[in-house]
Amino acid sequence: MNVFLNDYNDLCHERVLERITEVNPKGNVGYGFDTYTDRAKKLIKRDLKREDVEIEFLSGGTIANIIAITSNLMPYEGIIAADSGHINAHEAGSIEATGKKIETVATEDGKLNSLSIRKKYSQLSEEFTVSPKLVYISQTTELGTVYSLEEIKDIYATCKELDCYLYIDGARMAVGLAASDVQVEDLCSICDIFTLGGTKNGAIYGEALVIVNDALKKNIRRYMKQRGAVLAKGFILGAQFEALFEDGLYYELGKTSYERSIHLAQSLRDMGVKFYAEPQSNQVFILYPTEKIQGLAENNSFEVSPYSEDEKILRFVTSYRTTPEEIDNLIADLKKIN
Amino acid sequence: MNVFLNDYNDLCHERVLERITEVNPKGNVGYGFDTYTDRAKKLIKRDLKREDVEIEFLSGGTIANIIAITSNLMPYEGIIAADSGHINAHEAGSIEATGKKIETVATEDGKLNSLSIRKKYSQLSEEFTVSPKLVYISQTTELGTVYSLEEIKDIYATCKELDCYLYIDGARMAVGLAASDVQVEDLCSICDIFTLGGTKNGAIYGEALVIVNDALKKNIRRYMKQRGAVLAKGFILGAQFEALFEDGLYYELGKTSYERSIHLAQSLRDMGVKFYAEPQSNQVFILYPTEKIQGLAENNSFEVSPYSEDEKILRFVTSYRTTPEEIDNLIADLKKIN
Amino acid sequence: MNVFLNDYNDLCHERVLERITEVNPKGNVGYGFDTYTDRAKKLIKRDLKREDVEIEFLSGGTIANIIAITSNLMPYEGIIAADSGHINAHEAGSIEATGKKIETVATEDGKLNSLSIRKKYSQLSEEFTVSPKLVYISQTTELGTVYSLEEIKDIYATCKELDCYLYIDGARMAVGLAASDVQVEDLCSICDIFTLGGTKNGAIYGEALVIVNDALKKNIRRYMKQRGAVLAKGFILGAQFEALFEDGLYYELGKTSYERSIHLAQSLRDMGVKFYAEPQSNQVFILYPTEKIQGLAENNSFEVSPYSEDEKILRFVTSYRTTPEEIDNLIADLKKIN
Amino acid sequence: MNVFLNDYNDLCHERVLERITEVNPKGNVGYGFDTYTDRAKKLIKRDLKREDVEIEFLSGGTIANIIAITSNLMPYEGIIAADSGHINAHEAGSIEATGKKIETVATEDGKLNSLSIRKKYSQLSEEFTVSPKLVYISQTTELGTVYSLEEIKDIYATCKELDCYLYIDGARMAVGLAASDVQVEDLCSICDIFTLGGTKNGAIYGEALVIVNDALKKNIRRYMKQRGAVLAKGFILGAQFEALFEDGLYYELGKTSYERSIHLAQSLRDMGVKFYAEPQSNQVFILYPTEKIQGLAENNSFEVSPYSEDEKILRFVTSYRTTPEEIDNLIADLKKIN
Repeated sequence: MNVFLNDYNDLCHERVLERITEVNPKGNVGYGFDTYTDRAKKLIKRDLKREDVEIEFLSGGTIANIIAITSNLMPYEGIIAADSGHINAHEAGSIEATGKKIETVATEDGKLNSLSIRKKYSQLSEEFTVSPKLVYISQTTELGTVYSLEEIKDIYATCKELDCYLYIDGARMAVGLAASDVQVEDLCSICDIFTLGGTKNGAIYGEALVIVNDALKKNIRRYMKQRGAVLAKGFILGAQFEALFEDGLYYELGKTSYERSIHLAQSLRDMGVKFYAEPQSNQVFILYPTEKIQGLAENNSFEVSPYSEDEKILRFVTSYRTTPEEIDNLIADLKKIN
Repeated sequence: MNVFLNDYNDLCHERVLERITEVNPKGNVGYGFDTYTDRAKKLIKRDLKREDVEIEFLSGGTIANIIAITSNLMPYEGIIAADSGHINAHEAGSIEATGKKIETVATEDGKLNSLSIRKKYSQLSEEFTVSPKLVYISQTTELGTVYSLEEIKDIYATCKELDCYLYIDGARMAVGLAASDVQVEDLCSICDIFTLGGTKNGAIYGEALVIVNDALKKNIRRYMKQRGAVLAKGFILGAQFEALFEDGLYYELGKTSYERSIHLAQSLRDMGVKFYAEPQSNQVFILYPTEKIQGLAENNSFEVSPYSEDEKILRFVTSYRTTPEEIDNLIADLKKIN
Repeated sequence: MNVFLNDYNDLCHERVLERITEVNPKGNVGYGFDTYTDRAKKLIKRDLKREDVEIEFLSGGTIANIIAITSNLMPYEGIIAADSGHINAHEAGSIEATGKKIETVATEDGKLNSLSIRKKYSQLSEEFTVSPKLVYISQTTELGTVYSLEEIKDIYATCKELDCYLYIDGARMAVGLAASDVQVEDLCSICDIFTLGGTKNGAIYGEALVIVNDALKKNIRRYMKQRGAVLAKGFILGAQFEALFEDGLYYELGKTSYERSIHLAQSLRDMGVKFYAEPQSNQVFILYPTEKIQGLAENNSFEVSPYSEDEKILRFVTSYRTTPEEIDNLIADLKKIN
Repeated sequence: MNVFLNDYNDLCHERVLERITEVNPKGNVGYGFDTYTDRAKKLIKRDLKREDVEIEFLSGGTIANIIAITSNLMPYEGIIAADSGHINAHEAGSIEATGKKIETVATEDGKLNSLSIRKKYSQLSEEFTVSPKLVYISQTTELGTVYSLEEIKDIYATCKELDCYLYIDGARMAVGLAASDVQVEDLCSICDIFTLGGTKNGAIYGEALVIVNDALKKNIRRYMKQRGAVLAKGFILGAQFEALFEDGLYYELGKTSYERSIHLAQSLRDMGVKFYAEPQSNQVFILYPTEKIQGLAENNSFEVSPYSEDEKILRFVTSYRTTPEEIDNLIADLKKIN
């Protein structure tokens, strides 16, 4: 089976597993106050070239989004997001469950921009609307598209002007860094808060939440506790991120995943396949005849979404585990079936 | 250092770690729909001697409590719990954050009973109160006390009469089973929903939520998703619980932990120490002169809580990692300092 | 000034005021358990030709929507509504504040239909979405359009098939009854819950919430209390609805308001004005040159919304207080300015 | 019937009714932006001798408490209150429904003090608790007791030291002013936010919320809208408070109510009746033999609460409507039954 279903189907990278086995057999301090976590935070701060950020480790993407977005919003404040945004479309009402309304923007490519944010903001000026306070984007987006450094800078300038926070959901940030001109040391100056996803990039589980803006640091630990987001054995998260960041493994894995996706996209393009969205990162979406899906699924795993009666959207995801052979096999199958 | 600080200071049991390393290197199905999880559920059902329960694996105790308690309550429904209950005292308002009120009962020993439940229930009959719908107890309790089978049966009969659900928080259920006459196969007939805690009993992280009552199974997965409680790599939870339950490791570890606590409690009793609560499980609470704490802490780790100016409450926790030597060393230190 | 700003700019109808002054000077029972409320409920049930519904009186439209929609939904359940729906666009996130997500449907005319509901429902079948459980429509809609009896019956049949509740927000139900072929005695058989708005139709304040479906009656009073929606002096709401329903005053006022709107719409149509939405009830929307608004506003009051640079949307609302002269004056002014 | 059941059993004071009938028959501006509301706010500010407060009018006590307490708290922040406090005991979980936890203090007399606040605060310093941010007291309390100026000043100094807001629930503030040495012009300097209750003191319905602290003014109108607390016909609330405050009617009614309660309490004291709480305002609680209640209830209305098998708690409430004759009749009945 050529695996393109998602980028979280493996246990973890070998060096991550190795590091975990080295954790003290006993006597570790709980709740993230241990030395592994401490070292992991220092390593990430080193890469970010910022000492004054707060870093917390969380178990997964949805809980990380909940914490990042809702910890320091007032009850009457709301969020602006693309309607395709993960928090709006794939998290079962997680943000609304905290009492907050997401004001959505329709997009072609899953990306917000200064203009679309301003327009939505201007529609929320009356007292019968929520008061917009946080803008949500993700790098990479749900459609696999990628923001350039300039694009995010422009969005962030707009956010600051409108007195809104900018949060970048980085569940796939490792690929995002490989696929864009955004450097890891840019991150702290182009948003107020962001995540560095581990689950989809070598960790067993874990997302690093990086809080740049002091206003968003306030009581974040209490809020994490309230949402069930503080793990007793926090040291295991720390150990994983130590392994990912001490020698640049995190970036390497993202780069490999991105390179595989380039290989895949180019091969598909050469075949003349119809893309559903411009392939820019490790999620590649194509339109494919409904009748041929079954055949393709025999040796290849991928996600299928509705489009029309005749065609469906297929999503192929690469990861650092994807091999060039898998890609070539998939392409061969596609050609065979055509 | 003799470690009595808590029962979640190790990585995990060796057999759990071993099992994790055997997880497929790639191609695992996400979100708990994998074969490891499937097998783990079957093993637990085998031990419970019940096929019709639903089992879900969660990452920690607080999120497990949130899911277990609030997934199928209406907005106007409330919870009855001891005021010392973990959900009331140690989870930063996690239940209230979902919109639910906890109606608390003052207790001496951390335990509810039929009478105290009835009394509280009768105070909640008017339309200006929440409608009590779920009773929360934990086995073992926050004070280390333990319910007998008869006691829980009595509570459950009362709950059914009052049309309330009974939830048993089993973060320390393995010790609870060792310390009481409750057998694992009793559990499904003495409550509506309960957890089998793994984090404090050999797992890296993970709690098994067992849902007996059909009314509480409804859309539980959507609710888990909404609360950020579904892990992408659910197969890792499955693998851990497979290791814990295939050969009774779960019960063994609980038994060891309990035996150590008996050793400790007896030694303390022999010394004439004042207990803060009757020692019945692996959390042992004593009253201790404030001035002597520093000396004791040199070679022993434990938790300190306020009591009076002259005395503090010390908590000693044993786990399956605790050695008899550690206990003897602690006792020796106590004697020396006296 | 010709008043077309809204339909809640008067104190109340004279007969309502008169009735209030007849309330016992003292000794009335609180919280809606009085004889006025009792009689008002009986009168409404008489008109509905249904004895087994539950009726509660609430102080305004938004709180009535909150109670009607969220009282008996589980945390993971969601609402389907038109994106122009009042709950989505004009209530400052009131539904989300209770933890519930509104899944919106884009419409041309502010109306849902069987097809659009089914389509949205089918997109919400996965566990990473909320579980749709209630469909919200209003009679009349935010755009002044009106559902026919057949249309609502069709929607309700769909709702039942999909196991969803249907709620009709009747803030302007009196006009809705005048403007459509829906009779008051139809209401209980075409939805699960609805309101009969008083604030915009002769009352000082007050909406009657009529609950048809037993599942939605459960603990509704406790929930009203929890949301601050139970008035201590409930008897004043009862007295008002008694006055509105004993001799058909409620329907008369709605009819007058509707007739005025017909007069207005026809006059505008004769002038060749561009309507923003088909005028079907007492909210009439036209597109109007931005530059001419100021002149028109000198003697006429109305609401202005953004449309384009050159044109704005003007809303003219009639009520039972609107006089034919006001309409003629407005038309004369429009002609003069042209 | 001698009416002692509560202080909200009348329509309203004659001068309030009169004023309402004078409201413009048409053309009033909605949502509280009218001239009546404007004048009412000016009158209250005049009495408070403070121009920089924000005043909003709300329909009832519970919704006023919700708005006052939860509008500007972060999700992780909590409230400290007496366990007998109205928000904890009589509002069906209204505060918890907004996601906030109330941390309760057991009291003898329904009153908090500097010491009890500090003690509770000190128990909430860890990250597994909510962060206390608002202290709730009411003048008068649920037990009819009253705070002195000195007592509130002391509490407020403590609150400021602990960086908490102080909210005074003034549902019965008119009586509170009559019964204590607190003057109306003291109010803005002894707390951050408070209410002046109208429902129990001459209004049809309505509470004035006075916000002193700028931090609590932020987006209060959006939050009111979100909670369904903005009345379309806000001008009717304005008209009522204009009538209550233009000539001191508000204070007069409170004074009368208080004087009646003094008459009642003295008469009961003379009889040697056992008080359940020290009678200090217009709620007077006595212990009374269960067997004699039925007889007393024949000609007198009052509230009964559980106490023991042999005795119950009777609550007698006076209002400005209470006549000296009613009190004498009640006393005569008590004597006759004895």
